[in-house]
Amino acid sequence: MKRILFILTVVLLQSSTSYGQQPINRVEPPNWWIGMQYNEVELMVYGQDIASYSVSLDTYEGVTLKQIKQVPNENYLFIDLKIDERTLPGNLTLRFTKNGTEPVIHSYPLLKRDPESKRVAGFNTSDAIYLITPDRFVNGDTGNDTVDGLKEKADRTFKGGRHGGDVQGIVNSLDYIKDLGFTAIWINPILENDMHTYSYHGYSTTDFYKVDPRYGSNESFKSLCKEASDKGMKVIMDMIANHCGLDHWWMQDLPSEDWINQWPEYTETNHKKTVILDPYASKIDYKQFFDGWFVPSMPDLNQRNESMAKYLIQNTLWWIEYSGISGIRMDTYPYPDMYFMSDWTKAVMDEYPNFNIVGEEWVTRPTIVSYWQKGKENKNGYTSYLKSLMDFPLQNALVTSLNKEKTWASSWTDLYETLGQDYLYPDPNNLVIFPDNHDMSRIYTQLNEDFDKYKLALTYIATVRGIPQIYYGTEILMKNPGTEDHGIIRSDFPGGWKNDKINAFTGKGLSAKEKEAQEFVKKLMNWRKNSTLVHHGKLMHFAPKNQDEIYVMFRYDDKEKIMVVLNKNTKDMELDLKPYKEILGDQLTGKDILSGKEFTAAKKISVKAMGSLIIEIE
Amino acid sequence: MKRILFILTVVLLQSSTSYGQQPINRVEPPNWWIGMQYNEVELMVYGQDIASYSVSLDTYEGVTLKQIKQVPNENYLFIDLKIDERTLPGNLTLRFTKNGTEPVIHSYPLLKRDPESKRVAGFNTSDAIYLITPDRFVNGDTGNDTVDGLKEKADRTFKGGRHGGDVQGIVNSLDYIKDLGFTAIWINPILENDMHTYSYHGYSTTDFYKVDPRYGSNESFKSLCKEASDKGMKVIMDMIANHCGLDHWWMQDLPSEDWINQWPEYTETNHKKTVILDPYASKIDYKQFFDGWFVPSMPDLNQRNESMAKYLIQNTLWWIEYSGISGIRMDTYPYPDMYFMSDWTKAVMDEYPNFNIVGEEWVTRPTIVSYWQKGKENKNGYTSYLKSLMDFPLQNALVTSLNKEKTWASSWTDLYETLGQDYLYPDPNNLVIFPDNHDMSRIYTQLNEDFDKYKLALTYIATVRGIPQIYYGTEILMKNPGTEDHGIIRSDFPGGWKNDKINAFTGKGLSAKEKEAQEFVKKLMNWRKNSTLVHHGKLMHFAPKNQDEIYVMFRYDDKEKIMVVLNKNTKDMELDLKPYKEILGDQLTGKDILSGKEFTAAKKISVKAMGSLIIEIE
Repeated sequence: MKRILFILTVVLLQSSTSYGQQPINRVEPPNWWIGMQYNEVELMVYGQDIASYSVSLDTYEGVTLKQIKQVPNENYLFIDLKIDERTLPGNLTLRFTKNGTEPVIHSYPLLKRDPESKRVAGFNTSDAIYLITPDRFVNGDTGNDTVDGLKEKADRTFKGGRHGGDVQGIVNSLDYIKDLGFTAIWINPILENDMHTYSYHGYSTTDFYKVDPRYGSNESFKSLCKEASDKGMKVIMDMIANHCGLDHWWMQDLPSEDWINQWPEYTETNHKKTVILDPYASKIDYKQFFDGWFVPSMPDLNQRNESMAKYLIQNTLWWIEYSGISGIRMDTYPYPDMYFMSDWTKAVMDEYPNFNIVGEEWVTRPTIVSYWQKGKENKNGYTSYLKSLMDFPLQNALVTSLNKEKTWASSWTDLYETLGQDYLYPDPNNLVIFPDNHDMSRIYTQLNEDFDKYKLALTYIATVRGIPQIYYGTEILMKNPGTEDHGIIRSDFPGGWKNDKINAFTGKGLSAKEKEAQEFVKKLMNWRKNSTLVHHGKLMHFAPKNQDEIYVMFRYDDKEKIMVVLNKNTKDMELDLKPYKEILGDQLTGKDILSGKEFTAAKKISVKAMGSLIIEIE
Repeated sequence: MKRILFILTVVLLQSSTSYGQQPINRVEPPNWWIGMQYNEVELMVYGQDIASYSVSLDTYEGVTLKQIKQVPNENYLFIDLKIDERTLPGNLTLRFTKNGTEPVIHSYPLLKRDPESKRVAGFNTSDAIYLITPDRFVNGDTGNDTVDGLKEKADRTFKGGRHGGDVQGIVNSLDYIKDLGFTAIWINPILENDMHTYSYHGYSTTDFYKVDPRYGSNESFKSLCKEASDKGMKVIMDMIANHCGLDHWWMQDLPSEDWINQWPEYTETNHKKTVILDPYASKIDYKQFFDGWFVPSMPDLNQRNESMAKYLIQNTLWWIEYSGISGIRMDTYPYPDMYFMSDWTKAVMDEYPNFNIVGEEWVTRPTIVSYWQKGKENKNGYTSYLKSLMDFPLQNALVTSLNKEKTWASSWTDLYETLGQDYLYPDPNNLVIFPDNHDMSRIYTQLNEDFDKYKLALTYIATVRGIPQIYYGTEILMKNPGTEDHGIIRSDFPGGWKNDKINAFTGKGLSAKEKEAQEFVKKLMNWRKNSTLVHHGKLMHFAPKNQDEIYVMFRYDDKEKIMVVLNKNTKDMELDLKPYKEILGDQLTGKDILSGKEFTAAKKISVKAMGSLIIEIE
């Protein structure tokens, strides 16, 4: 009876359980699946003196206990299991025996896969991504704002504190996000960050297998993925392979000294991404880039430790298989060991061939960003399997061009020339493009609260090649005047908290301009959602003329054409269409999707001062 | 008797002559040489109705008249001669006959080559180049300040006018330049620029075979090369294949419409170098980049016209063979037809394998500059034969780093990271590095007249990889405060004109700081001249620490080491040598060549506020 109850419990939790004398605190991953390509799983078993136990596996068809690895710290064992094709779902029985006493039995679930999971479609050019910092978006469950046993309590008066936003808040907002025209949500890290302070950002993981209870639970996150999927939306999980939080449970009791990268004295990464291909780089700078810590509160994981590498790869596969996410945004992509990142990405893509992962490489040189994209032939022979990267160079060029004054050359030159460097990328269409994100000033602030420039920026992001990403609140002109404080940049979304005076969901309290922005984003993104030409079309752009501050770009294929006109002149302009003859022919008939204005057999078109046109050509 | 006199004249002038009825105004090139690899020369013959004459060549062993080409304009004939290996020096006789009248005879010299010319050594990393704008350096011959028959007269009161500097002035200054430690001179264009105004800069060629008489003559230029060579110095000629001057003689009577690139209305180049590899570039932008004019006064030559291409290639070979120059600086390198530029460069390098050519590609993206360097594997398959380029990206990064305030990252980061992009170049050592040139603000002005930064800039230029180039007057802090007017940037070198109140040659009237600068350049460049380690050594640099604004670089080989320390802190610093252990070992013994200070078994070294060290390590 006890046994039956036990099995039921396992099935309900879909997670492993031990009984008998309890030397086992953790077994990670908590379960695995049958029918995975990744079928040699290494269990990390953590418990007092666990290495002093001998381990055996009860016979289970298709499963072999391949190896038991001891490490310097006797509180850990790593157990390698091989799960072959014949294996059926069920529970493995692992016996831990010590000195002839009653063995501790650990029951380890091998679950059946969702037959669809292998085919999960990652985000792609048909998507537009809405980025959410979960603590700051919507507080859907005030009951979990403060959770017993977790160090940091809710404090909405502190800009760097926990404000109470959560997974339920996102669930509640799915229709709002969908109505805006977005088809994917990238959520900043939702795993447990049990740090004393500044834990709201989520980049200090303290448990790689657990959603932070202040956001919800593993189950509620999984439900979010399901509900989003039912509405035709994808969820992108934010992951960090470079570091964990200083208060991660293993930091008090590391498996081995080399589990993390340790230095005689605290050493930070030098952030010098150039060291990788720099022919003159010193060895110490190379090492420091990869192995230096990001900040003192984030220990740098050593992915050259084979068990750490497996731990991270398995953790990622576990989350994909468990939750049904459609993509990953990998934080600080170049900072971990780069050969590990190849292995990690390859393992994911081998398992889920249609999946997508976007890496963060925050530099403005396309030479460096492109190094990481799959298909790039690198000077040092490095092979990457990463399909997508954040297009920081284009973000930088967009803002630079918009803020620049005209000189002898058009102020659009930076943007035009940066896009012209796309030959460096094996697949520029798979870059994620964005006006801003959670780590930089709000785009409206970057553009000095110039509403016209804001609209030009969004028009560009919605029409150029790539996968657009917008930060929550950008649609209502959220800003951070006079500060770059992250807590302010990531302010609470108005309407996300009960009794908020301003409510972006209902429009209550929004200024006319904020409402206009919201409508603008909605129109733009809903149009883009259905424009297969923007998703898949080719691109042609014309060098901005030095005289008139106009940038013209076309998206086109064999059948259709869209003409995008961005006017940075502070006066209305008549645009002669002759220069675009090679794509337009002699005249233009079509409709501007922004204003609704129609053009018939036009040889010139007018474009408003600081305005833009998106003309669908008939 | 008449005939004998004629032959004598030819030998004296080393140039072709015609007699009889005189329909021939020009034959270019005016001679060729035997024993050239380029042994199929195309003569451009220009004269009234010359196409109505039939042409024959008197028998001359080894020489064949291969082809006579007519073009739309009957005042031109292009005559292709093949000169095979057997050929001996002498004069060809070409007969131009019309309607049975007495033929016009043109005697065309085939000269003996200087046996050394094929082996002429181009500038290389052992050199340091002194750049001179000849009109503005030294007026060595006041007799040619104004020359009858040339439009623009001397006017030293006009900043954009002719000031009288000349070839003789350079000859007179060779010892000064040599004493400063330079081993090469790049002279801005010295060919005839018979334009009405602003002709002093030399970039509007009106005769490709003639030194501007206001500078001297072909012979005096040749003498300059010889005298420089005798003093161990190389001369680099500034050439322009992209355009000529609007008052070039052929502009009144073009051989054919396609001799230059013509447009329905005046069309300037868009200067968009990105179009070459931009996957989205429009055809019209591509065409406009190459075929648009540089400015209205400079017709854009059409190098796709085969005779134009040959004309330009032959003209270059002619000047090398005639004058004994050691290198070419090619103006606006990417603007002519790029396939022609390959042919041109290859022809020169095939003929003179040890020669060197540096191309001007004024952009700050190493991706674009490196496109043009020999050995680069380009995405479009383009093959270049150009060995050297002007390193504009490094110039830009140097000034940016020096002028920048420290943020969270060191202000040296731009420079460090830009140098780290050297993997993009097949041969970074063959880049010409410079703090400024004749087209931009004086370096002292760019650095806001900060003498410390000026010295840091020069220290870097003298020690980093590449071939340094300094603009005349930089050694005495010449500046252009409050203006970017080229006429001011290219001000007269003090002491170059009789009765100048200030004389940089004697030191008369120089301020103490200007004298100090001159001594600094002299010390630095004379040291570099003899430092084979800087010429040929490897390079290692260390990422500037975010805290201390110090940039450390080593030049080294198996036997020797130099440590370069650049300190942008505004206070004296103690530099712990531990971080440099991988190259220094545990301590340092050596001597700073700037201060003479010696270090013995040092574990720390001090470096002055805003100061630098160049330590030769024992």
